[in-house]
Amino acid sequence: MAPIPHPLSALSIEETNQARDVVRTLHPGAVLDFRAIYMLEPPKSEVLKFLALEHEGKVTESTPRPDRLAQLRYDVIEAGKEPEYHESVVDLRTNKRTHHEVVGSQHQASLTVFEFEQLVKCVKEAPMFQEKMKEIQLPEGFELVIEPWPYGGPDEADGQTRFFQALCFGRDTRSGNPDTNFYAYPLPIIPIMDQRANKLVRIDEPATGGQDDPLVGKTCKIDAISHCQSAEYVPELLPNGVRTDLKPLTVQQPEGPSFSITDGNLVSWQKWQMRVTFNPREGAVLHDIRYDGRDVLYRLAMSDMTVPYADPRAPFHRKQAFDFGDGALGNTVNNLELGCDCLGIIKYFDGVLTEADGTAVPTKNVVCLHEQDNGINWKHTNWRTNRAVVTRRRELVFQFIITLANYEYIFAFKFDQAAGITVEARATGIVSVVNIDPGKTAPWGTVVSPGALAQNHQHLFCVRIDPAVDGHQNTLVQEESLPVRRDTESNPNGNRYEVRKTKITSSTHLDLNPFTNRTFKIQNHSKVNPVSGNYVGYKLVTPATQMLLADEHSIQYNRAKFAQHGLWVTKYKDDELYAGGRYTLQSRHDIGGVYDAAARKDSVVNEDIVLWSVLGLTHNPRVEDWPVMPVEFLTLHLQPADFFTGNPALDVPSNKDIGSKLTEGCCHSNITVPVPSDS
Amino acid sequence: MAPIPHPLSALSIEETNQARDVVRTLHPGAVLDFRAIYMLEPPKSEVLKFLALEHEGKVTESTPRPDRLAQLRYDVIEAGKEPEYHESVVDLRTNKRTHHEVVGSQHQASLTVFEFEQLVKCVKEAPMFQEKMKEIQLPEGFELVIEPWPYGGPDEADGQTRFFQALCFGRDTRSGNPDTNFYAYPLPIIPIMDQRANKLVRIDEPATGGQDDPLVGKTCKIDAISHCQSAEYVPELLPNGVRTDLKPLTVQQPEGPSFSITDGNLVSWQKWQMRVTFNPREGAVLHDIRYDGRDVLYRLAMSDMTVPYADPRAPFHRKQAFDFGDGALGNTVNNLELGCDCLGIIKYFDGVLTEADGTAVPTKNVVCLHEQDNGINWKHTNWRTNRAVVTRRRELVFQFIITLANYEYIFAFKFDQAAGITVEARATGIVSVVNIDPGKTAPWGTVVSPGALAQNHQHLFCVRIDPAVDGHQNTLVQEESLPVRRDTESNPNGNRYEVRKTKITSSTHLDLNPFTNRTFKIQNHSKVNPVSGNYVGYKLVTPATQMLLADEHSIQYNRAKFAQHGLWVTKYKDDELYAGGRYTLQSRHDIGGVYDAAARKDSVVNEDIVLWSVLGLTHNPRVEDWPVMPVEFLTLHLQPADFFTGNPALDVPSNKDIGSKLTEGCCHSNITVPVPSDS
Repeated sequence: MAPIPHPLSALSIEETNQARDVVRTLHPGAVLDFRAIYMLEPPKSEVLKFLALEHEGKVTESTPRPDRLAQLRYDVIEAGKEPEYHESVVDLRTNKRTHHEVVGSQHQASLTVFEFEQLVKCVKEAPMFQEKMKEIQLPEGFELVIEPWPYGGPDEADGQTRFFQALCFGRDTRSGNPDTNFYAYPLPIIPIMDQRANKLVRIDEPATGGQDDPLVGKTCKIDAISHCQSAEYVPELLPNGVRTDLKPLTVQQPEGPSFSITDGNLVSWQKWQMRVTFNPREGAVLHDIRYDGRDVLYRLAMSDMTVPYADPRAPFHRKQAFDFGDGALGNTVNNLELGCDCLGIIKYFDGVLTEADGTAVPTKNVVCLHEQDNGINWKHTNWRTNRAVVTRRRELVFQFIITLANYEYIFAFKFDQAAGITVEARATGIVSVVNIDPGKTAPWGTVVSPGALAQNHQHLFCVRIDPAVDGHQNTLVQEESLPVRRDTESNPNGNRYEVRKTKITSSTHLDLNPFTNRTFKIQNHSKVNPVSGNYVGYKLVTPATQMLLADEHSIQYNRAKFAQHGLWVTKYKDDELYAGGRYTLQSRHDIGGVYDAAARKDSVVNEDIVLWSVLGLTHNPRVEDWPVMPVEFLTLHLQPADFFTGNPALDVPSNKDIGSKLTEGCCHSNITVPVPSDS
Repeated sequence: MAPIPHPLSALSIEETNQARDVVRTLHPGAVLDFRAIYMLEPPKSEVLKFLALEHEGKVTESTPRPDRLAQLRYDVIEAGKEPEYHESVVDLRTNKRTHHEVVGSQHQASLTVFEFEQLVKCVKEAPMFQEKMKEIQLPEGFELVIEPWPYGGPDEADGQTRFFQALCFGRDTRSGNPDTNFYAYPLPIIPIMDQRANKLVRIDEPATGGQDDPLVGKTCKIDAISHCQSAEYVPELLPNGVRTDLKPLTVQQPEGPSFSITDGNLVSWQKWQMRVTFNPREGAVLHDIRYDGRDVLYRLAMSDMTVPYADPRAPFHRKQAFDFGDGALGNTVNNLELGCDCLGIIKYFDGVLTEADGTAVPTKNVVCLHEQDNGINWKHTNWRTNRAVVTRRRELVFQFIITLANYEYIFAFKFDQAAGITVEARATGIVSVVNIDPGKTAPWGTVVSPGALAQNHQHLFCVRIDPAVDGHQNTLVQEESLPVRRDTESNPNGNRYEVRKTKITSSTHLDLNPFTNRTFKIQNHSKVNPVSGNYVGYKLVTPATQMLLADEHSIQYNRAKFAQHGLWVTKYKDDELYAGGRYTLQSRHDIGGVYDAAARKDSVVNEDIVLWSVLGLTHNPRVEDWPVMPVEFLTLHLQPADFFTGNPALDVPSNKDIGSKLTEGCCHSNITVPVPSDS
């Protein structure tokens, strides 16, 4: 028998198929439509016992290992019965199912790409839709494109029906290029499908007016897109081609990367160590993150994201995606490409996805790993001797990219040599547009192309941070710098300010405040820094951003209560991973998310705590965002705060010391080359 | 006669010496001690006439040029008279002085490195100081180091005397290495010198106690630094040497850079054009910044910075540097080094400084220019065809670095292909420490090394932005995204939010507000974007940060009123460049700074406006900041907002298209190299 894999490693192809087989035999006579199969992380208490031995180098073949568990999500389809959505957990060691649940119809399973295909087929074949398309009258040479979308937060009348909505566009086929940009030709119709019944139920016709038009009612003309205009982005279709004055810039690592990978997914780099897995709900997940043999984080991952739109006209209030929770992330992950998604020497990690029959299929290059230079990390010049010591900032970057119909997100987890961690999200892709009548503008969006209104919207991300600062009993302390009035006793000159520390005692939400320099420290109150006398800790530095704007009496608000506050702290609970709850598709409330977790009011002093950091980007589009938008950045930082007894990057050699030999080789690096100049 | 140089070019060596000679002849019989000589920018009205012709390619030899002006700052020393500080302006075309002013003693001239040398000598030779040092008793093998500092905001009793203060340290000489870190051994004495009298006037003895000790009174023992501990940072002195597992990473640009430099200081890169100059007050200054033939900014530079300390104990309330305004920046600028301060192909610009007798001396490599890669700039994958188009984000970076005694700042102006501009400040170097008794801690700082208390402080930068968005008549509009209550009429589903625009009508300060997504747009109200119908504009995106904390009845506050607000808008006035006023050294109020400029209440609607963006970093030190701190970042962004009719970076070729040929050459770039792995 093969050894049991590491408890923090994703399921292999074989394990995935093994889990499928176990479940199949338990549903004889039924058709099973699999939505996802992936590792269920073992209880932390078991993992920690194993890791304690591993960190001491004491793991042997006979070391007890945590259960190896697969979680399976699937529909059970039996003749004469309504399809049911089931979730099971299988112990791969015993081949037994340890958990089985039929999920009630108050929840919707996350969606799959197979359902998208079903939607496109269903809409296209529906006579009601074909009739409507005759009214629309696509111009000569244009074809219909159907873009599947989740239904969003349902209206009261929608009950518990599983709906999908389809955004419709016209695509100019005349060039013969399959990548002409259909988003430039939005059609003012949104067909709605009942997924379980596999039936088109209605076609919504949103208003296409502007500023002074009513919110409902037809104002679109028959020739809905004749006033639209092409907006190509593939280089061969650009009217003036690409610019020709950009010279190559590449990265050289002649001795290879500074990282190594052992045991399949254990990455070691510059005193850092961590394990990386991939799953179809969160993308890349990092585990057991340590620096120089000391615990820093148990787990780091994107938890969820909501993207509500602010166009008040029905049905756009239901335009609200949960790009992680709604599902299919696994299939939206980009298979990354050399030289375009990263420079330098790149290590790619593959993932495992599942076909509808449960068969595991590998997906290539879903997470990439590389090093990058980020300028100077520290410098000091002794002006008496003119001796400058300068080191550069090398970073290790885990990156994954998802494409959600029109839109792209690039996520990166970065580690630096000063023991800092940065989580970065870049938003790019094509902003979502709807049809607007010629010559009109609207206060809830920007006309980015004739006939195309890019609606105002927000992106609200939640990053789940499971800390382990020198161990798993941690405490969150809020620290603020506050003005102090001048007084003769303690502040005679008026220049003093107070650093006020507030221990957070029970699970709760917290708000940011840049004006008091509010920062949050994750501390271990059983360890004191021998130099400063402060508790050892890590500091969370997040930008203060705007939270969800929707009214508290709206569905948008209630499905994403996590997006009301910049930070949450909760007490750890196994498998409590998703800020918006386990089931976000067509949710009306974020049940089981961080809001509910915080409401337990658990003690979080010297406890195994979890932080949930929420960052928002209010995106009122610019014309410059069209047709593909330049990246917008959101980042958060974790930095040691009295965790070490000095700058951990102090022993980094200068670039000159490690790279200067290259100037004698074939590669002319770091040398001054004459630049075009007339002076 | 040589042609008159471009109006936006720094003075040459010859011009500087010419200006000196003119002034010398006007002060016969006097000794002149020169503090600075550099270009006075001609009146904007004259420059704009010239630029208008230049932009149309119509400048010839006979084109009228603005006056070529030098500004000179110097002391006039005549036998039997008090030295006087003078400022003159010389027209280099006519060799005439066009302006002359004896600056009154209510202002202090900015300092020079020559004065620093004078201070060190004066203190060391003073019997009062020598007596004090006998009390201090430096340990065997230690020598005294004197660190000159500006005196800060004077106390009432100080009158208008020109003082300097000297921080004192012990340096361990036993290794024979001249770069042992003396900052680890702070002495509890601060000698004060009267510069004009060239005399030590007293020795301040700050308290060295902690939390529960009184704010004044001697608690230091005779052996002031025996409890301190070495903290070396030069690699050869590190106890365990440097880490050896960092592999080289270098940047290759085999075809050279994508920028070119013509006319001495005109930089062209990726549709951008700008001129760069260097002066000893602001460092690098960028002028006439244009994109694709359209005006964006007239001028961009750092305006000032204040660094107040929060230790309430005298004399630390006077620890408040103005690192630009106090002077000597020219001499603190680093002469940059290949491969350490930047990677890739680097163009260096030299500067001109002045000796005490007014002789111009070149200073090498004070500003560097290079390109860098900053990840993905835009990407979209058509999931139907699997065609991914991805371009990287190339940036052009102007960088300069200053060393102010213990501390370093790295400033960068970055231009990107999506027509964005980023201003970045990185803080590094050695945090300022003072002596603290063994075993004690204090609420106004962090003990970062035994006996060394790093005091809490703030860094408040002001960036001066002189916009020219499609011309010089611009208007500032504040834009906020605000929640709207659900109502049946205009917001039936509660998802709408309002984008409220507020035109700023007269010069004023403004505050940031991330929670309303407050952004500021610089618009040209005579031009409308043909796609969106909005005014063409640029958006200023700055982080909300904590402003100056000192009490309003403190000197710290009154010398830096600019640091009370995140943004100021004023009407342009020639030579109004400095947020903290022209004379910051020993100032009590920031006279003539942006506070006074805003108080004019000028109309700023369709006017030539100037923005002053203030960013703060409240720095309560970590032990990790010792002995040299890893960089802390502060950045602001300028982005086009409906300035273009689409993404200006759309025509950027993908990296694969411009860099892929390299994989066949001698340099293995962008290829997957096996990484150490056992799997």
